[in-house]
This record gives sequence, C-alpha cells and structure tokens, in this order.
Amino acid sequence: MSLKRSWVDSANAPDTDFPLNNLPYGAFAVGDGAHCGVAIGEMILDVTRLETDGRIEILPGAGPVLAGGDWTAFMALGPEAWARLRAALTEMLAEGADEAGMLAGYLVAQAEARMVMPFRVSEFTDFYAGKHHATNVGTMFRGPENALPANWLSMPIGYNGRASSVVVSGTDVVRPHGQLKGPDDALPRFAPSARFDFELELGAVVGRPSDGPVSVAQADEMIFGYVLLNDWSARDIQAWEYQPLGPFQSKATATTMSPWIVPRAALEPFRVSTPDRERELLPYLQEPGPMLYDIALEVGLAPEGKPETLIARTNYREMYFSAAQQLAHHTSSGCPMRVGDLLGSGTISGPEKDARGALLELSWGGSEPVTLVTGETRSFLEDGDTVTLRGAARGNGYRIGFGACTGTVMPARDLPDRATN
Amino acid sequence: MSLKRSWVDSANAPDTDFPLNNLPYGAFAVGDGAHCGVAIGEMILDVTRLETDGRIEILPGAGPVLAGGDWTAFMALGPEAWARLRAALTEMLAEGADEAGMLAGYLVAQAEARMVMPFRVSEFTDFYAGKHHATNVGTMFRGPENALPANWLSMPIGYNGRASSVVVSGTDVVRPHGQLKGPDDALPRFAPSARFDFELELGAVVGRPSDGPVSVAQADEMIFGYVLLNDWSARDIQAWEYQPLGPFQSKATATTMSPWIVPRAALEPFRVSTPDRERELLPYLQEPGPMLYDIALEVGLAPEGKPETLIARTNYREMYFSAAQQLAHHTSSGCPMRVGDLLGSGTISGPEKDARGALLELSWGGSEPVTLVTGETRSFLEDGDTVTLRGAARGNGYRIGFGACTGTVMPARDLPDRATN
Repeated sequence: MSLKRSWVDSANAPDTDFPLNNLPYGAFAVGDGAHCGVAIGEMILDVTRLETDGRIEILPGAGPVLAGGDWTAFMALGPEAWARLRAALTEMLAEGADEAGMLAGYLVAQAEARMVMPFRVSEFTDFYAGKHHATNVGTMFRGPENALPANWLSMPIGYNGRASSVVVSGTDVVRPHGQLKGPDDALPRFAPSARFDFELELGAVVGRPSDGPVSVAQADEMIFGYVLLNDWSARDIQAWEYQPLGPFQSKATATTMSPWIVPRAALEPFRVSTPDRERELLPYLQEPGPMLYDIALEVGLAPEGKPETLIARTNYREMYFSAAQQLAHHTSSGCPMRVGDLLGSGTISGPEKDARGALLELSWGGSEPVTLVTGETRSFLEDGDTVTLRGAARGNGYRIGFGACTGTVMPARDLPDRATN
Repeated sequence: MSLKRSWVDSANAPDTDFPLNNLPYGAFAVGDGAHCGVAIGEMILDVTRLETDGRIEILPGAGPVLAGGDWTAFMALGPEAWARLRAALTEMLAEGADEAGMLAGYLVAQAEARMVMPFRVSEFTDFYAGKHHATNVGTMFRGPENALPANWLSMPIGYNGRASSVVVSGTDVVRPHGQLKGPDDALPRFAPSARFDFELELGAVVGRPSDGPVSVAQADEMIFGYVLLNDWSARDIQAWEYQPLGPFQSKATATTMSPWIVPRAALEPFRVSTPDRERELLPYLQEPGPMLYDIALEVGLAPEGKPETLIARTNYREMYFSAAQQLAHHTSSGCPMRVGDLLGSGTISGPEKDARGALLELSWGGSEPVTLVTGETRSFLEDGDTVTLRGAARGNGYRIGFGACTGTVMPARDLPDRATN
C-alpha cells in the first residue's frame, strides 16, 4: 500500500507519523476540558467539536458519543462504527475533498496541544511474551539452562497490572520508594529504588467486551488499536517482593502510554506471523493467520538538559505470542473482558545486544553499563533522565507511527515519618 | 456496646445480621433498574427512592447521589457524608422515631429482593496475609522448613486480581477451563479444572482516592466498609501457570462478594490488634492502633439438593496484616488508589484443622478428603456444590453480619473447536 495524500500538507511528508493512512485516536486538553481528536500530519482534527456542530454523525440516531475527550463510548459501538468513522474521515481529509475549507477551522496544531488520556483504562494486564527478553532475564536470574520457565512456550505468561497508574506520554514519573533488600542484607529497608528501569512494550486496547472464552480470531476482532507502552519497573523492589505471587509495587508506579491509539485497520498492511513454534500450541492458542505487525521500535535516553542517545532498536515482530493470542488466553478461564482493557505485550527485545528493550538487559543487570553520547554511563535510570519510545510501521513512502511516548524520572518524594501520623 | 432497638421488629432479633447497629449498604433490582438500599432486620430500606422523593438529603445542595443502585458517588463524598447518612438513618429507624409511619412504605422484604453489585469495582487486589494459610500452603509445596517465603513477615504479599470477575452473592460460577499439567505429564492439556476451590476472605472497599503514599492511619480512614469474599481458585491451573509472575487465569473466573458492605463505623466496637510481630515491621507498616476486627467466620458446603455441612470456622482476627496495612503498602510505590478499589485479605485460616479457609488446606492437597454430613467426601469442589460464607461480629445481644456470600459451581462450558473459528 502507498501513501494516501491529504489536503493537510504536513500529512504527506514521508517522515510524519500521521499520514492519512493512519488517523490515530487521541485526546487533547482544551479550555472547557478535553476533546477527542485524530492526528493528521502536524495537526489534530477536533472530532468532538465536529460532532457537536453536527458535521459528522458517529451513529445515525444516537446522541453525542465523543464528549469529554473519552473514546470509550465510541469503542463500545463496535467495529462497524469504527470503520464508518474511519471511512468518513479518510474521505473528508483526502486531497481534493470538498470539505477542506470547512474542516480547516477544526484543525489544532499538535505543537500547541497538551495530550491527555484518550480513554479510561478498565484493567491493565501485562504479559511476558517476548522470548529474547524472557531468555535474557531468565539467564541472569537462573542461568542459561533454566532461562525459560517450563510453561513459557505453552502459554503467554501474564499478570494483572494496575490500571490506575497508566498515564499519558509527557507525565513525569516519580521514583518510587519500596522495600529493598540486597543479597547480603539481613532485613529489608524502605528507600527509593536504586534500580529503576523502563520497559519497551506495545499495548493492545480492547474495544469489545466478552463474557466467556473467545477464539484467537475473535480476540483479534476485539482489538480497537495499539499504543506504545513504557512499563516503568523498579528491579530492586521486584526482586524482593515477587515470590511467590508476582510483581506488585515494583510495577505500580506508572506505565506511560503513547498519546495516540493507532487503529488496527491502519496496521493491516503490516501483518506478519509469529515466529515458528518451538512447541506445538494447544488449539485454543493457534492462530488462523498473521497477527503480529512489522513495527520498528526504538528507545531514546536523554539525561537532564543533554542530548538523547538511541539505546535500543527492535521490532514488534520479535514477539513470540501476539496480542490476539494473549487476549484469547486471558478469556480462557471465563474472565470477562471490558471495553478499555489494556494488554501490554511484555518487553520487546530482539536477538542483538542493542535490541534489548530494558536497561536490565542492556546493562546485563548493571554489570555492563550503557555508554551515552554524552560520555555518561547508565546501569539504571537516574533522576532527570527522559526515556522516549518511538515506533512506526513503514509502508511505501509513508509510515504509521504512534507519536513519542515519553516520561522523565523525578526524584523520590520526601516522606514524613509515617509510623506516627 | 449493646443493641440499638428499631421499630422494624425483625431488626431486634438477637440472630439477625442486620440490627440498627449495622445498616450495611447494598443494591437490589427493581422494575426500573436497581436501587441502593440499607439492610434493617429482614427488610431493605430503599434509600434511592427516599432520596428521589426528597425524604433524605445526602449532601445539602448537591444533586441525587444514589441513582442506579450504585454507591460509588456516595463513597466519593467522603467520611463526613458517610457519617451524616448513617446518623440520619439511625435516628429515622430507631424505636419511637417519628418517621416510622412514613418510612414503612420504603421497606422491601429481603426475601423478595434480588441483590446486585452495589458498586463498580475499580480494581481488585488480593493479598496473602493470613499466616496459617501461607504456612499450610507453603508446607504442602515447599516443606515445613521453607513454608513462609523470606519476604512474608516483612510485607503483606499481594497481587492484582481481576475486577471484571467480581460478582455478587448468588451468581452461578462456571467451572473454568485451563491449561493443566500433572507432574508426570510431558505437556499440558486444555480441560476443565479438576481442583476447583473456594477461598474464605474478607474484602475492604476503598472509599477515598489517594495519589501517593499514605500512612496506615490514613489508609484506615480511606476504607468505606468490609465485605465477605469467596475468591474461587483453580489449583491445577494455578500450579502450572504461576511461575514466575503469579496467579492469573486460576483466579480470574469469579470472586463472589457478599450482598452487603458493612460500614467501618459498624465494626468499630470490635477492633482488635494484629498478632504479635515475629519480625519488627518497617515504620511505614506499623499500626498506630488496633486495625483488625473480631469477626467470626464460617464456610458451608452443600452438594446439589442436599443439606449443608459447616466445613470451616475461623475468625478475621487471625490475619497477620490488616487491610489498613495492606492499603498503605499498596500505595508505597506511589500507586494511585481509586474509589471502588477492592482489597481481598487473603485466605483466613486459623490454627486448628477445621479453621482452614480453603479445601486445598482442609483436604491437605486432596490427600485427606473432607467428609460431609451426607457421607460424601470432598477434596475439591464438584459440579452442583454450593459454597456459602457467613460472618458476624458479636456484640452484647446483637451481631453485625454480612448476609450469606454464596455461589454454586456449574459444569464447565462445552467449547467449540477454537482453532478453526
């Protein structure tokens, strides 16, 4: 597929994340709250105002759907409504469209907009479905012979994360306190995490509910779109707390989401298959077709006030399990899924050393610090560090991107004496 | 404290769960949806209709708060509003109250009401904070020397559960499918769980949000009330899936909640301290006062169409960590808490063999089946079994109860061939 040209000039630039082929969903702050918007080139089309003014009708006969900068009600309308709006906006924004004059008044410059969360996350589930990541982490903790847990090739291992801590790109992240205990310490102490890390992930936004097990094909149809996710992780808190019930406070400080949800429809030309199976999957997890996407990903790290270093480059196609497989597994027990559920892929690492999606792996547990262009090194994140994730599927003369997913580490809070208040 | 007498006669019976001292919050289905109600003896006071008719004002000047059988907006008003409504209802329902004649028209018989979920669960967190339970389970899996994980005495171990699967008492629970792998099996198979179990827990309903770490004392003030919880668990799914990231689908089928939320205020006379610490806690987890409650608990199991056997009797005071400690720990990383968050205590087992809050412990992993009054035995639950949790704090001539928390196990679904659809 090739570039669809738009009358919004900046949408035709080969390096924009937001050509007419993309049309991702976001929300931005305005004087009276927040509006839903769709990115086009360097601009945002204010679709809440378009709906309010009667210029578009999301569902004939239904009332307003896009109030308050929240796409949840729109998601709940289902795939036909998603396709209908996408077709209407594609036509209105295409080169030569009659609506160009009228629509120009509904465009807002991204440079002047503050992005906010585009939906309320119902629940957040984080998986561990990247084989290179699981192998690297397992090798560090259990040695190369026992790197992959026995169940790993049979199912997408996942755990429930914390929806309340999902924040939009640009939100500062305060270094967490937690219980830390070194291998030689007799007892833990309560202190700021000294091994605070990022994780490069892709997130799938669930747009349709389910009540009972669904197939992989049905699960794929339930996915509204994809986002970039940085699942901030306190490795020292995690090491002490995670046995036997898994990560808890180590993963509860924040998960940063890209400002834009890329529609599943925009990614269709980039579908690729999961890697060859090393163990045959049970039928409920077998894929009827390609359900991963060829999305190039990168991570930049910039110390405070200094230039950024690209510290990792990888691709979403490195995942061993797709979001559709994860979602099917998630429902296998009968677990109901709801509109607004968010599924993190797990850290996306490639086979090469510079394709690792977390500092834990890049610095091999801190033993091989990463050198930045500034000459500084990093084993884990320092206060003031800004981490930026970027990603794009690359078509013929265009790219489908997510916008930057960025966050800056702020110093830990001063805590009062909490035993006495 | 002794019984407060009400003009609702059944509220003065010594064995009712719902004397005037209790006034728990619930929701019941009516013709036009659901209404909020407060239990009094054998009746429910329809507070949604009282508010609609202008007989009570929740917050002076504010609009209606109790629409749709959902207490969430009321919870969000905070402790002053909670105390205000409680005081008003206590006065109106007291023996000799002037309002008796008027209020009689707002009473609905519990026997004729169908209870529904009284709030939308924001997120559900399940803890593992009962020492007898953790010791029993650890002994079975790792031997008596390694029963308690190294971190266990230092923090309330918890994991995020699944809010979408929390259901109200009386909802049938379908036996889940999942990946099962016996110790001698080379590969897992996908089949109905053969080791489906209950867990006796108390749940704390969070009524105030937080954004950053809170103290134990602040956490206690954030708790709106308590419920009984049955955290249904598929032990065979859990055994294969839970390493390294904790329980996932094994705990996602359903968690059954009692129909009534007992206000924290109603439990005040029954506060007791947590047991003596075996390891000094870090200051952020130390309690400024007694934060557990003396609540007697029991579990009944009835095969389909047959009488119930009381298979366990224990007490909430057996917990090692209180809900306030759990909530303080939950916020320690900065994790935001929201109105409607639900915290499960973890399985509440006592030291005696018949004080164990799960079949896994009662039948010692299936090796010592429990004998029922019908002569049948149970290692784990069978289709048609009804599990009922009950609980009450016992005062002078009265009890503060939760109503029965009940659920029946239905046969596993027939699944279509899901690889091909």
